[in-house]
Formats: sequence, C-alpha cells, structure tokens
Amino acid sequence: MRKGKQTVLFDHGVYILSGAGVVGKKEGQGPLGKCFDVTLEDDLWGEDSFEKAERKMLQQALETAKLKAGMTNDDIDMIIGGDLLNQIISASFAAKDLKVPFLGVYGACSTMCESMLLAGCLIDGGFSNHILCAASSHFSSAERQYRYPLEYGSQRTPTAQWTVTGSGCSLLSNQKSNLSVVGGCFGKILDWGISDVNNMGSAMAPAAADTINTFLDDTATKPEDYDLILTGDLGKIGKQIFCELMKQKGKDVTKVANDCGCLIFSQHQDVHAGGSGCGCAASVFNCYIRPKMEQGELKNVLLAATGALMSTTSSFQGENIPGISYAVHIRSN
Amino acid sequence: MRKGKQTVLFDHGVYILSGAGVVGKKEGQGPLGKCFDVTLEDDLWGEDSFEKAERKMLQQALETAKLKAGMTNDDIDMIIGGDLLNQIISASFAAKDLKVPFLGVYGACSTMCESMLLAGCLIDGGFSNHILCAASSHFSSAERQYRYPLEYGSQRTPTAQWTVTGSGCSLLSNQKSNLSVVGGCFGKILDWGISDVNNMGSAMAPAAADTINTFLDDTATKPEDYDLILTGDLGKIGKQIFCELMKQKGKDVTKVANDCGCLIFSQHQDVHAGGSGCGCAASVFNCYIRPKMEQGELKNVLLAATGALMSTTSSFQGENIPGISYAVHIRSN
Repeated sequence: MRKGKQTVLFDHGVYILSGAGVVGKKEGQGPLGKCFDVTLEDDLWGEDSFEKAERKMLQQALETAKLKAGMTNDDIDMIIGGDLLNQIISASFAAKDLKVPFLGVYGACSTMCESMLLAGCLIDGGFSNHILCAASSHFSSAERQYRYPLEYGSQRTPTAQWTVTGSGCSLLSNQKSNLSVVGGCFGKILDWGISDVNNMGSAMAPAAADTINTFLDDTATKPEDYDLILTGDLGKIGKQIFCELMKQKGKDVTKVANDCGCLIFSQHQDVHAGGSGCGCAASVFNCYIRPKMEQGELKNVLLAATGALMSTTSSFQGENIPGISYAVHIRSN
Repeated sequence: MRKGKQTVLFDHGVYILSGAGVVGKKEGQGPLGKCFDVTLEDDLWGEDSFEKAERKMLQQALETAKLKAGMTNDDIDMIIGGDLLNQIISASFAAKDLKVPFLGVYGACSTMCESMLLAGCLIDGGFSNHILCAASSHFSSAERQYRYPLEYGSQRTPTAQWTVTGSGCSLLSNQKSNLSVVGGCFGKILDWGISDVNNMGSAMAPAAADTINTFLDDTATKPEDYDLILTGDLGKIGKQIFCELMKQKGKDVTKVANDCGCLIFSQHQDVHAGGSGCGCAASVFNCYIRPKMEQGELKNVLLAATGALMSTTSSFQGENIPGISYAVHIRSN
C-alpha cells in the first residue's frame, strides 16, 4: 500500500526469517566484535585478491542466512544485492553459485536498505516468497578502487570514514517470524553541494534526514515511536548534521538516533569519523540489531542506510557528491 | 502473480504510456536512424566529457518520455535505471534533477528489462503509479572505461560488438494505454566458461535462452505465440548461439527471433558482431519496436535484454563472464 509518494506499507506481512554477517579483523576487534557470525583473520581470507575475499564474505553471509532459516537453494526465489565495486562484481559473482534469480542493485552504502525495501515490495505484492537481501564492502578493495594503493600509506583527514570490511544478508519472507518489515521509504537524491570525497557523512546526512522525515510524516509517527532510528553510515560528523537537520524540521531525534558507522568501531581504532561502506549497515543490522530485536530488547527500529552517489570519474570531473537514503521500518512482534 | 519460481504475471494491469530514445551519430546513420527522438551530431553533445554527454542523453530520454505522456515531475513516483559506468553515475546524476525517488539497478546490458520488470512489480503490487524506466550507454565513455583510450586506435576482433551510444526510457503506469506489460521473467546468472571480453554475445546467449525458455514454459506459450522474441544485444554471433540453444530445448525460434544489436547497425558500419550496451535495447525498444506495437504492426513481443556481468578487475583477475537476462512480455491491446 502506498502512503504518500515515497512511503510503502506492507499489507500482507513481510518477515525477516534470519540474518548473517561476516566482518574483517579490525571490525572483529571493535565493540560489536562478538556479534558477527564469522570474523576474518586477515584481509585475504585465503584468496589471492581482496576482491575475491569480498565475494567469499558475501557468499558466506548468503549461505549462513539461508542455512539459519533451514532453507536450501530451491527454497530461495531471488537474491537482491549489490556492493561498491565497479559493476557490482562482488554481488554478481557471489550470487552466481546459488543458481537462483538475481537482481543487482546499486545505492552505494544504502544498498542493504534498497534491497530490503525492494524485497518487501516483491514479497508483499505476491511475486516472491523468500528473498535473500545482501550487501558487502571491503576496506582493501574499496581503498584501491576509490582512493590510493594501500602501499602508498596516504594520510586521512579527520572527516574521512573507514570502509568496513563486512558483508550482511537478511532473508525476507512471507512466512511468519517474530520480526516484521512493516514498510519503508524510497529516497530521493539530494545534492547539497558537498564535493569532498573525505567528507561523505556530510554529503549523505541531508538525504537521511529527508527520507526519515518523509517516512515519519507519511506514517504520522514521531521519533519517540521508535526505540532506535539507525542511519547507515553517516559517521560521527554526518550523524551530528542529521540530528541538526531533523531538529530544523521540528523533530528531535537525539534520544533515539544512532549510526552503524559510529557503532562498529571504537574511537581508539583510528577510524576518524567512523565506519562506512555497504557492509557497515548490512553487518551491524544483521548481527547486532536483529538479534536484539529478536530478543525483544528493541521493538521498533527505523533503519536508514545512506549512500553517496559518486565515482572516481565523477569526482575527477568536478561533480558534487549527491546522497540517497532508503528507510525500512522493522518491528519485533 | 507468480507463475513458477522466476516468472510473474501482472494481474491489475501495467501499461506503457510513452517511450523515448536518444542516440549517437553512428546510430543515427544506421537502418533505424529515422526512429529516434534525438540524434547527436557528435559524441560530446556540447558537454566537456563523454560521461556528461551520456548523462545528458539519459536526462533527455527521461524528459521526453515524461512530456510525451503529458506528465510533470510531480506525477512521477520513481525512476528506476542504470548504466554501464562505474557506480552507475549516468543514471544517478540524470535522475537527480527530477527530484523523485530513485532506484539504481545494475544488470549490465540487461538493465532496461531489469528496470521494466521491477517497475511492473511495483505498479502491479500497488506501490507506485507511474515509473520512468531508463538505461544508457555511450561508446566513448564505455570504451575508455572498459577497454582502451580511443586515441590508441586498438584493433577489434570479428566477435567484438560496438557499444551503442544511446539512451532509452519507458514510462510504465497503472493508467490504461494500448500497450500492456503482461509479465516477465527474472533471470538467473549463467556462467558457461566464456572469458573473452571480445565475445560478449557468446557469454550472454545461454542466459537469454534460459530466461526465455523458462518464461515460455511457465506461461505455457510457444515461440509462435509471439510476433517477435527480441533479445537485447547478443549481436549476430550470440543470436546464432541463442537460436541453436533454443532448438536444443525443443523450441524453434528462428522465425520470430531478432536482436537489438543486429537491428541498430547495418553490416556496412564496421561494427563487427553488432551493437551492445544498455542503450541498445533501451533505444531500439522505445523508438522502433514500441511505435510498431502502438500502430498494431506487432501484437506480442517478448523483449529480453541481456547482460554480461564483469568488470575490468574481474577480467584481469582471470574470471569468466557470466551472463544474465530479464524478459518482459509486452502486448498491443
């Protein structure tokens, strides 16, 4: 059901049956380290390239989520997923082996929520029964694609975020569980003139505020109706801006807002403004938030992953970095 | 409504209200040259980079399709689109200006059908009313990203295809028109061991055959029930393989099969195996096939765009090129 132009609510019931996440060594040493299904011992995980290691992490997340729900490949109708690498090779190559239909999506670091929202629509619309939603990122594959060779040892600015080495997968279904996907909000692209690739949090914060504000308005709910409004990877600078922007819209989110990029690393881990990457929201939601919801510690969570829409080419050609955010409302039943 | 695991049929009516396409000079000189809404005079179209020209072509296609249906930005619920450039910057930057929700997708050259199929599900499921589906490619931006600098003048093999400079957009809606999107089929990723980046047609043909065969079986239809089974951009080599594979599955498609990559260029245009790129199926369908259907010349068309899932990194690392294809059944009412 549509609620306004951007918001959808699922009438027939969309549920999360299981979730899984795999992270790198640094993430394993962070405050959430004990939550993840698998923690890598090194960046290569026995593969001969970072890209192949990232794919293996995504494969592992897909397999683990599937097995946790007691399903086989035959039960899965579709995989919806994406990642940060050019032509989303991590997701396509990881999905290949399951031999089920695949929908590749790209929403930069908002990909996890983009895939969950789409999966919700496909399940609620009666087109699919069980969909694996997945996203990944890898510090080393992202660093050499977007920035510099690791060997270069380039200096980072205080506003820079650290790409999370992580993958996450949620199994969405029309089969009942104690976690519902209530609905969500499709985001617009917002360009507030940020062009500094070392300040992605600022580039994405306006989109997060716009999407969450729209969802709250469309559903006539208030920030205090949620136990947690969790943005994807704004980091500590972006999170501050997000809270300020929400305040300007007359909504005080300070008591319920948190950010996956602020949760996954501690301040002592030299990650400057916090974590980022598709794998950030994907692993934090599936391994830290989802279990808390299943145990009833959190009842209503609004998860809004955020993406910075840029490439090295667009930045070299002087373009700004527009942001986008998709929100998903998850409820513990 | 699901029909089998991969096929969906739209129960409530999904329609194509309008379509538009913009192509480059070479495409304008081809056999379909007179069909397109706009033909560029040169590859830059007044911009200072090929990437910006590609974006402008996609903007123009979006605007034209919207205006042909007499709509404004306020009427549009969503844009679903993608392209071949890293991080789909053409689609994101083109969509930005319309200030409507955006869903970025990546299915390589299958993107046009991926977006139409998704839009069909969102409209039929009651989540959206009007969705612009769009895809683009540009010979010069693709060539320098995937292959060599143009100035290098590299030699092409006979199996190589020529990336179409083109963009296309269809406006899908729940508002009745004389063109219905009846349903479609979500494709699986097929890897038949092809790793030659100059032989994409062979890499994609098995996926096209698999998707079309599945759709025909799921809907209990035969090739002769369609006036045209149009693959995306297999080119002449891929098309031959596709017909052969269909024959092995006991279905003779030779009388109804054609391919957008074979239609858009003539043999005298030095394009070797034919056209390719997201913009190939997008522009040929919207500007050549759609008008023929509106005029009643074609009644039932099965459009199956095909994508080769690879990046320069995956190929440099020795990976194969898996293929994917999404099919959409369009009917003239």
